[in-house]
Amino acid sequence: MIIRQAQQSDAPAIHRLICGLAEYEKAAHEVKSTVADIERDGFGPNPLFHCLIAELDGDAVGFALYFFTWSTWTGTPSLYLEDLFVYPDKRGQGIGFGLLKACAQAALEKGCQRFEWAVLDWNHLARDFYHALGAYHKEEWLPYRLEGESLSKLAGS
Amino acid sequence: MIIRQAQQSDAPAIHRLICGLAEYEKAAHEVKSTVADIERDGFGPNPLFHCLIAELDGDAVGFALYFFTWSTWTGTPSLYLEDLFVYPDKRGQGIGFGLLKACAQAALEKGCQRFEWAVLDWNHLARDFYHALGAYHKEEWLPYRLEGESLSKLAGS
Repeated sequence: MIIRQAQQSDAPAIHRLICGLAEYEKAAHEVKSTVADIERDGFGPNPLFHCLIAELDGDAVGFALYFFTWSTWTGTPSLYLEDLFVYPDKRGQGIGFGLLKACAQAALEKGCQRFEWAVLDWNHLARDFYHALGAYHKEEWLPYRLEGESLSKLAGS
Repeated sequence: MIIRQAQQSDAPAIHRLICGLAEYEKAAHEVKSTVADIERDGFGPNPLFHCLIAELDGDAVGFALYFFTWSTWTGTPSLYLEDLFVYPDKRGQGIGFGLLKACAQAALEKGCQRFEWAVLDWNHLARDFYHALGAYHKEEWLPYRLEGESLSKLAGS
Protein backbone atom coordinates (compact mmCIF):
# COMPACT_ATOMS: atom_id res chain seq x y z
CA MET A 1 0.00 0.00 0.00
CA ILE A 2 1.32 3.41 -1.03
CA ILE A 3 -0.01 6.77 0.17
CA ARG A 4 0.92 9.73 -2.00
CA GLN A 5 -0.20 13.29 -2.79
CA ALA A 6 -2.67 13.36 -5.68
CA GLN A 7 -1.72 14.84 -9.04
CA GLN A 8 -4.04 16.52 -11.53
CA SER A 9 -4.18 13.30 -13.56
CA ASP A 10 -5.83 11.62 -10.53
CA ALA A 11 -8.95 13.80 -10.89
CA PRO A 12 -11.10 11.03 -12.48
CA ALA A 13 -10.10 8.56 -9.73
CA ILE A 14 -10.81 11.21 -7.06
CA HIS A 15 -14.25 11.83 -8.56
CA ARG A 16 -15.03 8.10 -8.46
CA LEU A 17 -13.98 7.99 -4.80
CA ILE A 18 -16.16 11.03 -3.99
CA CYS A 19 -19.12 9.25 -5.62
CA GLY A 20 -18.29 6.06 -3.71
CA LEU A 21 -18.31 7.93 -0.40
CA ALA A 22 -21.58 9.70 -1.24
CA GLU A 23 -23.17 6.33 -2.02
CA TYR A 24 -21.97 5.02 1.37
CA GLU A 25 -23.49 8.15 2.97
CA LYS A 26 -26.78 7.39 1.19
CA ALA A 27 -26.51 10.65 -0.74
CA ALA A 28 -25.21 9.71 -4.21
CA HIS A 29 -27.78 12.04 -5.83
CA GLU A 30 -26.22 15.04 -4.04
CA VAL A 31 -22.88 14.90 -5.87
CA LYS A 32 -22.88 17.72 -8.43
CA SER A 33 -19.10 18.10 -8.71
CA THR A 34 -17.31 17.11 -11.91
CA VAL A 35 -13.83 15.91 -12.82
CA ALA A 36 -13.23 19.39 -14.28
CA ASP A 37 -14.06 21.03 -10.91
CA ILE A 38 -11.45 18.85 -9.22
CA GLU A 39 -8.84 19.58 -11.89
CA ARG A 40 -9.49 23.33 -11.65
CA ASP A 41 -9.60 23.80 -7.86
CA GLY A 42 -7.25 21.15 -6.48
CA PHE A 43 -4.08 21.79 -8.41
CA GLY A 44 -1.84 24.66 -9.47
CA PRO A 45 -0.03 27.24 -7.31
CA ASN A 46 -2.91 28.02 -4.91
CA PRO A 47 -5.10 24.91 -4.66
CA LEU A 48 -8.37 25.14 -2.71
CA PHE A 49 -7.84 21.63 -1.35
CA HIS A 50 -5.24 18.87 -1.04
CA CYS A 51 -5.74 15.18 -1.62
CA LEU A 52 -3.93 12.01 -0.56
CA ILE A 53 -4.42 8.83 -2.58
CA ALA A 54 -4.04 5.30 -1.20
CA GLU A 55 -2.85 2.94 -3.92
CA LEU A 56 -2.98 -0.84 -3.86
CA ASP A 57 -1.41 -2.72 -6.78
CA GLY A 58 -1.44 0.52 -8.79
CA ASP A 59 -5.15 1.24 -8.19
CA ALA A 60 -6.53 4.19 -6.23
CA VAL A 61 -8.56 2.44 -3.52
CA GLY A 62 -8.95 5.25 -0.97
CA PHE A 63 -8.51 8.98 -0.50
CA ALA A 64 -8.34 11.76 2.05
CA LEU A 65 -9.33 15.24 0.82
CA TYR A 66 -8.45 18.13 3.14
CA PHE A 67 -7.74 21.84 3.33
CA PHE A 68 -6.29 24.25 5.85
CA THR A 69 -8.54 26.49 7.92
CA TRP A 70 -7.44 28.91 10.66
CA SER A 71 -8.15 29.03 14.37
CA THR A 72 -8.52 32.40 16.08
CA TRP A 73 -7.83 30.65 19.41
CA THR A 74 -4.59 28.87 18.52
CA GLY A 75 -3.39 31.51 16.02
CA THR A 76 -2.35 28.71 13.65
CA PRO A 77 -3.84 26.84 10.71
CA SER A 78 -5.91 23.72 11.39
CA LEU A 79 -6.24 20.77 9.04
CA TYR A 80 -9.85 20.00 8.09
CA LEU A 81 -10.52 16.58 6.59
CA GLU A 82 -13.47 16.96 4.23
CA ASP A 83 -13.61 13.39 2.93
CA LEU A 84 -12.05 10.07 3.98
CA PHE A 85 -13.02 6.92 2.11
CA VAL A 86 -11.75 3.45 1.28
CA TYR A 87 -13.69 1.22 -1.10
CA PRO A 88 -15.65 -1.30 1.04
CA ASP A 89 -13.93 -4.36 -0.49
CA LYS A 90 -10.49 -2.93 0.38
CA ARG A 91 -11.10 -2.32 4.08
CA GLY A 92 -9.54 -4.08 7.06
CA GLN A 93 -5.99 -3.59 5.79
CA GLY A 94 -5.16 -0.36 7.63
CA ILE A 95 -5.70 1.88 4.60
CA GLY A 96 -8.05 4.29 6.43
CA PHE A 97 -5.62 4.45 9.33
CA GLY A 98 -2.73 5.10 6.93
CA LEU A 99 -4.62 7.99 5.34
CA LEU A 100 -5.45 9.51 8.75
CA LYS A 101 -1.83 9.15 9.83
CA ALA A 102 -0.65 10.93 6.67
CA CYS A 103 -3.16 13.73 7.37
CA ALA A 104 -1.86 14.06 10.94
CA GLN A 105 1.69 14.35 9.54
CA ALA A 106 0.56 17.00 7.02
CA ALA A 107 -1.12 18.90 9.87
CA LEU A 108 2.03 18.99 12.00
CA GLU A 109 4.22 19.93 9.00
CA LYS A 110 1.95 22.94 8.37
CA GLY A 111 2.10 23.98 12.05
CA CYS A 112 -1.51 23.02 12.84
CA GLN A 113 -2.57 22.34 16.40
CA ARG A 114 -5.92 20.84 15.42
CA PHE A 115 -7.01 18.11 13.01
CA GLU A 116 -10.77 18.27 12.51
CA TRP A 117 -13.57 16.63 10.55
CA ALA A 118 -17.26 15.76 10.77
CA VAL A 119 -18.88 12.33 10.93
CA LEU A 120 -22.46 11.20 10.35
CA ASP A 121 -24.19 10.45 13.66
CA TRP A 122 -25.22 6.92 12.59
CA ASN A 123 -21.68 5.91 11.61
CA HIS A 124 -20.77 4.29 14.93
CA LEU A 125 -18.03 2.16 13.36
CA ALA A 126 -16.18 5.34 12.31
CA ARG A 127 -16.93 7.14 15.57
CA ASP A 128 -15.53 4.28 17.66
CA PHE A 129 -12.39 4.31 15.51
CA TYR A 130 -11.98 8.08 16.00
CA HIS A 131 -12.48 7.82 19.76
CA ALA A 132 -9.79 5.12 19.89
CA LEU A 133 -7.39 7.59 18.27
CA GLY A 134 -8.10 10.14 21.01
CA ALA A 135 -10.44 12.35 18.97
CA TYR A 136 -13.53 13.83 20.59
CA HIS A 137 -16.93 15.06 19.52
CA LYS A 138 -17.21 18.83 20.03
CA GLU A 139 -20.71 18.38 21.45
CA GLU A 140 -21.44 22.01 22.23
CA TRP A 141 -20.75 23.24 18.68
CA LEU A 142 -23.59 22.93 16.16
CA PRO A 143 -22.79 23.16 12.44
CA TYR A 144 -25.03 25.55 10.46
CA ARG A 145 -25.45 26.12 6.74
CA LEU A 146 -27.05 28.78 4.53
CA GLU A 147 -27.43 28.01 0.83
CA GLY A 148 -29.57 28.47 -2.27
CA GLU A 149 -32.23 31.18 -2.25
CA SER A 150 -31.62 32.05 1.41
CA LEU A 151 -27.98 32.80 0.62
CA SER A 152 -28.85 34.93 -2.43
CA LYS A 153 -31.52 36.74 -0.43
CA LEU A 154 -29.11 37.65 2.39
CA ALA A 155 -26.47 38.85 -0.10
CA GLY A 156 -29.02 41.05 -1.90
CA SER A 157 -30.88 42.32 1.17
CA MET B 1 -21.62 52.11 10.05
CA ILE B 2 -18.97 51.04 7.55
CA ILE B 3 -18.04 47.45 6.71
CA ARG B 4 -14.66 47.00 5.04
CA GLN B 5 -11.98 44.38 4.45
CA ALA B 6 -9.38 44.38 7.22
CA GLN B 7 -5.81 45.54 6.58
CA GLN B 8 -2.68 44.34 8.35
CA SER B 9 -2.76 47.45 10.56
CA ASP B 10 -6.10 46.20 11.97
CA ALA B 11 -4.41 43.18 13.60
CA PRO B 12 -4.48 44.65 17.16
CA ALA B 13 -8.20 45.52 16.82
CA ILE B 14 -8.92 42.03 15.42
CA HIS B 15 -7.11 40.47 18.37
CA ARG B 16 -9.20 42.52 20.83
CA LEU B 17 -12.36 41.38 19.04
CA ILE B 18 -11.23 37.71 19.16
CA CYS B 19 -10.67 38.09 22.92
CA GLY B 20 -14.07 39.79 23.29
CA LEU B 21 -15.79 36.90 21.52
CA ALA B 22 -13.91 34.31 23.61
CA GLU B 23 -15.02 36.08 26.77
CA TYR B 24 -18.64 35.99 25.55
CA GLU B 25 -18.16 32.24 24.85
CA LYS B 26 -16.88 31.80 28.44
CA ALA B 27 -13.48 30.71 27.11
CA ALA B 28 -11.20 33.75 27.41
CA HIS B 29 -8.40 31.56 28.83
CA GLU B 30 -8.34 29.50 25.61
CA VAL B 31 -7.10 32.33 23.37
CA LYS B 32 -3.42 31.67 22.64
CA SER B 33 -3.23 33.62 19.38
CA THR B 34 -1.23 36.84 19.20
CA VAL B 35 -1.34 40.02 17.14
CA ALA B 36 1.74 38.69 15.31
CA ASP B 37 -0.11 35.48 14.34
CA ILE B 38 -2.88 37.57 12.78
CA GLU B 39 -0.41 39.82 10.95
CA ARG B 40 1.47 36.80 9.59
CA ASP B 41 -1.40 34.57 8.48
CA GLY B 42 -4.16 36.98 7.46
CA PHE B 43 -2.39 39.23 4.99
CA GLY B 44 -0.07 39.02 2.01
CA PRO B 45 -0.57 37.23 -1.32
CA ASN B 46 -1.96 33.94 0.08
CA PRO B 47 -3.75 34.72 3.35
CA LEU B 48 -5.04 31.82 5.46
CA PHE B 49 -8.13 33.84 6.39
CA HIS B 50 -10.07 36.96 5.46
CA CYS B 51 -11.57 39.48 7.83
CA LEU B 52 -14.31 42.10 7.60
CA ILE B 53 -14.34 44.97 10.09
CA ALA B 54 -17.45 46.91 11.14
CA GLU B 55 -16.56 50.48 12.00
CA LEU B 56 -18.69 52.95 13.96
CA ASP B 57 -17.37 56.51 14.31
CA GLY B 58 -13.91 55.27 13.28
CA ASP B 59 -13.79 52.46 15.87
CA ALA B 60 -13.73 48.72 15.05
CA VAL B 61 -16.83 47.47 16.90
CA GLY B 62 -17.38 44.13 15.20
CA PHE B 63 -15.75 41.60 12.89
CA ALA B 64 -16.35 38.57 10.72
CA LEU B 65 -13.36 36.28 10.16
CA TYR B 66 -13.75 33.67 7.42
CA PHE B 67 -11.92 31.45 4.96
CA PHE B 68 -12.77 29.39 1.93
CA THR B 69 -13.14 25.63 2.18
CA TRP B 70 -14.16 23.24 -0.64
CA SER B 71 -17.14 20.97 -1.07
CA THR B 72 -16.69 17.63 -2.85
CA TRP B 73 -20.45 17.57 -3.42
CA THR B 74 -20.90 21.00 -5.03
CA GLY B 75 -17.45 21.08 -6.66
CA THR B 76 -17.07 24.70 -5.56
CA PRO B 77 -15.55 26.60 -2.64
CA SER B 78 -17.70 27.25 0.43
CA LEU B 79 -17.36 30.21 2.77
CA TYR B 80 -16.76 29.21 6.38
CA LEU B 81 -17.34 31.89 9.01
CA GLU B 82 -14.98 31.18 11.89
CA ASP B 83 -15.87 34.15 14.10
CA LEU B 84 -18.64 36.75 14.14
CA PHE B 85 -18.76 39.25 16.96
CA VAL B 86 -20.06 42.71 17.81
CA TYR B 87 -19.18 44.32 21.14
CA PRO B 88 -22.21 43.91 23.46
CA ASP B 89 -22.74 47.66 23.91
CA LYS B 90 -22.89 48.17 20.11
CA ARG B 91 -25.59 45.60 19.37
CA GLY B 92 -29.14 46.20 18.15
CA GLN B 93 -28.04 48.45 15.28
CA GLY B 94 -27.84 45.83 12.55
CA ILE B 95 -24.06 45.48 12.69
CA GLY B 96 -24.10 41.68 12.97
CA PHE B 97 -26.59 41.47 10.13
CA GLY B 98 -24.41 43.79 8.03
CA LEU B 99 -21.39 41.57 8.59
CA LEU B 100 -23.34 38.42 7.68
CA LYS B 101 -24.67 40.12 4.55
CA ALA B 102 -21.13 41.11 3.52
CA CYS B 103 -20.02 37.49 4.06
CA ALA B 104 -22.89 36.25 1.88
CA GLN B 105 -21.78 38.67 -0.84
CA ALA B 106 -18.16 37.49 -0.54
CA ALA B 107 -19.39 33.88 -0.81
CA LEU B 108 -21.31 34.53 -4.03
CA GLU B 109 -18.43 36.55 -5.54
CA LYS B 110 -16.11 33.56 -4.96
CA GLY B 111 -18.61 31.13 -6.55
CA CYS B 112 -19.57 29.43 -3.28
CA GLN B 113 -22.84 27.56 -2.97
CA ARG B 114 -22.64 27.23 0.80
CA PHE B 115 -22.08 29.65 3.66
CA GLU B 116 -21.33 27.72 6.85
CA TRP B 117 -20.43 28.25 10.50
CA ALA B 118 -20.86 26.70 13.94
CA VAL B 119 -22.77 28.06 16.91
CA LEU B 120 -22.70 27.13 20.61
CA ASP B 121 -25.75 25.08 21.56
CA TRP B 122 -26.75 27.43 24.41
CA ASN B 123 -26.69 30.54 22.21
CA HIS B 124 -30.41 30.52 21.37
CA LEU B 125 -30.44 34.24 20.54
CA ALA B 126 -27.93 33.61 17.72
CA ARG B 127 -29.60 30.38 16.61
CA ASP B 128 -33.01 32.08 16.31
CA PHE B 129 -31.40 34.83 14.23
CA TYR B 130 -29.75 32.26 11.92
CA HIS B 131 -33.00 30.33 11.48
CA ALA B 132 -34.76 33.56 10.55
CA LEU B 133 -32.20 34.02 7.74
CA GLY B 134 -33.04 30.54 6.39
CA ALA B 135 -29.96 28.76 7.79
CA TYR B 136 -30.31 25.28 9.22
CA HIS B 137 -28.55 23.10 11.74
CA LYS B 138 -26.88 20.13 9.98
CA GLU B 139 -28.09 17.83 12.76
CA GLU B 140 -26.70 14.57 11.39
CA TRP B 141 -23.11 15.87 11.14
CA LEU B 142 -21.02 15.75 14.32
CA PRO B 143 -17.83 17.84 14.51
CA TYR B 144 -14.73 15.96 15.72
CA ARG B 145 -11.29 17.15 16.76
CA LEU B 146 -7.90 15.55 17.36
CA GLU B 147 -5.21 17.66 19.03
CA GLY B 148 -2.24 17.68 21.39
CA GLU B 149 -0.61 14.37 22.27
CA SER B 150 -3.22 12.35 20.39
CA LEU B 151 -2.38 14.22 17.18
CA SER B 152 1.38 13.77 17.66
CA LYS B 153 0.88 10.09 18.47
CA LEU B 154 -1.12 9.44 15.30
CA ALA B 155 1.46 11.29 13.16
CA GLY B 156 4.31 9.28 14.67
CA SER B 157 2.58 5.89 14.81
